[in-house]
Amino acid sequence: MNNEILVVGSVALDTIKTPFGDAKAVLGGSAVYFSIAASSFSKVNIVGVVGNDFPDKYIKLLKKRKIDVTGLVKQSGKTFRWTGEYKYDLNQRETLDLQLNVFKDFNPEIPDVYKNIKYIFLANIDPELQLNVLKQVKNPKLVACDTMDHWIKDKKDKVCEVLSKVDIIVINDSEARQFSGSANLVKSARKIQECGPKVVIIKKGEHGAFCFSKNWHFAAPAFPLESVYDPTGAGDSFAGGFMGYLASCDRFSEKEVKQAIIFGTVTASYCVENFSVRRLQTINFQDIKKRYNELKKITHFEPI
Amino acid sequence: MNNEILVVGSVALDTIKTPFGDAKAVLGGSAVYFSIAASSFSKVNIVGVVGNDFPDKYIKLLKKRKIDVTGLVKQSGKTFRWTGEYKYDLNQRETLDLQLNVFKDFNPEIPDVYKNIKYIFLANIDPELQLNVLKQVKNPKLVACDTMDHWIKDKKDKVCEVLSKVDIIVINDSEARQFSGSANLVKSARKIQECGPKVVIIKKGEHGAFCFSKNWHFAAPAFPLESVYDPTGAGDSFAGGFMGYLASCDRFSEKEVKQAIIFGTVTASYCVENFSVRRLQTINFQDIKKRYNELKKITHFEPI
Repeated sequence: MNNEILVVGSVALDTIKTPFGDAKAVLGGSAVYFSIAASSFSKVNIVGVVGNDFPDKYIKLLKKRKIDVTGLVKQSGKTFRWTGEYKYDLNQRETLDLQLNVFKDFNPEIPDVYKNIKYIFLANIDPELQLNVLKQVKNPKLVACDTMDHWIKDKKDKVCEVLSKVDIIVINDSEARQFSGSANLVKSARKIQECGPKVVIIKKGEHGAFCFSKNWHFAAPAFPLESVYDPTGAGDSFAGGFMGYLASCDRFSEKEVKQAIIFGTVTASYCVENFSVRRLQTINFQDIKKRYNELKKITHFEPI
Repeated sequence: MNNEILVVGSVALDTIKTPFGDAKAVLGGSAVYFSIAASSFSKVNIVGVVGNDFPDKYIKLLKKRKIDVTGLVKQSGKTFRWTGEYKYDLNQRETLDLQLNVFKDFNPEIPDVYKNIKYIFLANIDPELQLNVLKQVKNPKLVACDTMDHWIKDKKDKVCEVLSKVDIIVINDSEARQFSGSANLVKSARKIQECGPKVVIIKKGEHGAFCFSKNWHFAAPAFPLESVYDPTGAGDSFAGGFMGYLASCDRFSEKEVKQAIIFGTVTASYCVENFSVRRLQTINFQDIKKRYNELKKITHFEPI
């Protein structure tokens, strides 16, 4: 139980178009990307909701990755569906259609068997629901969260309340800027940190990640890829690789957090190489380790 | 002479507005930023043109940095003037006014005493002029260049000819994408490399730099700063720190090129801390070394 992770977030069927192709009603959602990414490192337990249109093959896929789906509730109705398109540079995405369906009234109930899990990841959902999750779990060792522009805009006080209760936040650069009101990422990270989290990790997509802690900073580039097919889920895969590693070593001092950021970076690099979780579901710790070592080489320079 | 650098490029009087203030008719231009940046490492010789409105104090400033101004020609007329504004996030700049003045008919003539210089930097000027410079110098050891969107659009064949004659190109990410027609930076770097340069360095502003060589890659973050006042000249300062270091150690294998990229990164970080060269002109190698070591810490992570 000490090395297990609980993730609460969305489970979706995505329809995605990029300049390189498209995919229809494929497995997606923050909790899914996170779980599959983290499952290369640790046992993951997922809490989410799907409709009765949710294909059994996707449940099997999660189980094949040893992800526990006790907390994945099936409700009558349709699964959360998102349709989006990425243009030329893959950095900007447009939501073409959004159907919350059963996700609309999602109110995560943590199964008793999950309540003693020590590593908790609150993927991007309504901050009030994130707070509800925290009320249900007993004595976690490490809590990390994500959020998004929508909640920062409409429920900033609740986002702040979540921040006051988590150890780590993993957030997009644009959302960090939105939260702080400053264009400067160092300033933004500091403002977020003042709300509570000891560690603030800012994801910058193809530009890597920046980590801000009280006594140290850390900057990691993205893993350079010649072919990026679909950036959907990259941020959640980053968080999954990151938490997965921390839980697996059951330590989170400066050394492990930095390593975990590299593991998150590398895990995300696999995610974007195909649509949905097609690539992510095929990899294991050995694949990840290979790119970890490559990234070590790519960032190394001699001291003077 | 072995460790000296020759730079050919623009010398300007800039009027700049950012969200943090403004500056009127201050010292600028690619060759100027480059020279002052490189002068913390090596002796620099500058070739450029100014008008008779160019203030003596700026000549003195260059001389104080031990920059040789034999090749800085004064012509009757006005100095090249650029007026620009940066908005909120400092990433996008708008040119409000551009007066080429004496720079319009600039055709660099390399003084005889400069012709044996071994390290040549062709800052952003018309590629035909860059080629003229290369015809005048004798047996250089290392040639690097920059270019810009304007030339890639209008004189791509000439840009390609320059590329076929240089060892290293230092180029913006947007220009690399424009040159290659691909949004992917790895692909873009490869396409540029196919035109000639052994080393392609892509500058990504606040996101650092990425370097592509035949047998190795290197990624460096920017130096994290809480206060950026004016990004003008950051790219040229990067190139100056980069070439300055390579010339100072008179070697350019993988090890030195990677170190030089870090020196370029750190030198550029000082540039953006004030308008014009106000900050850059005050620093020395010890200041640069301090941030080099900080960046070493910020990027270091343990192997697994």
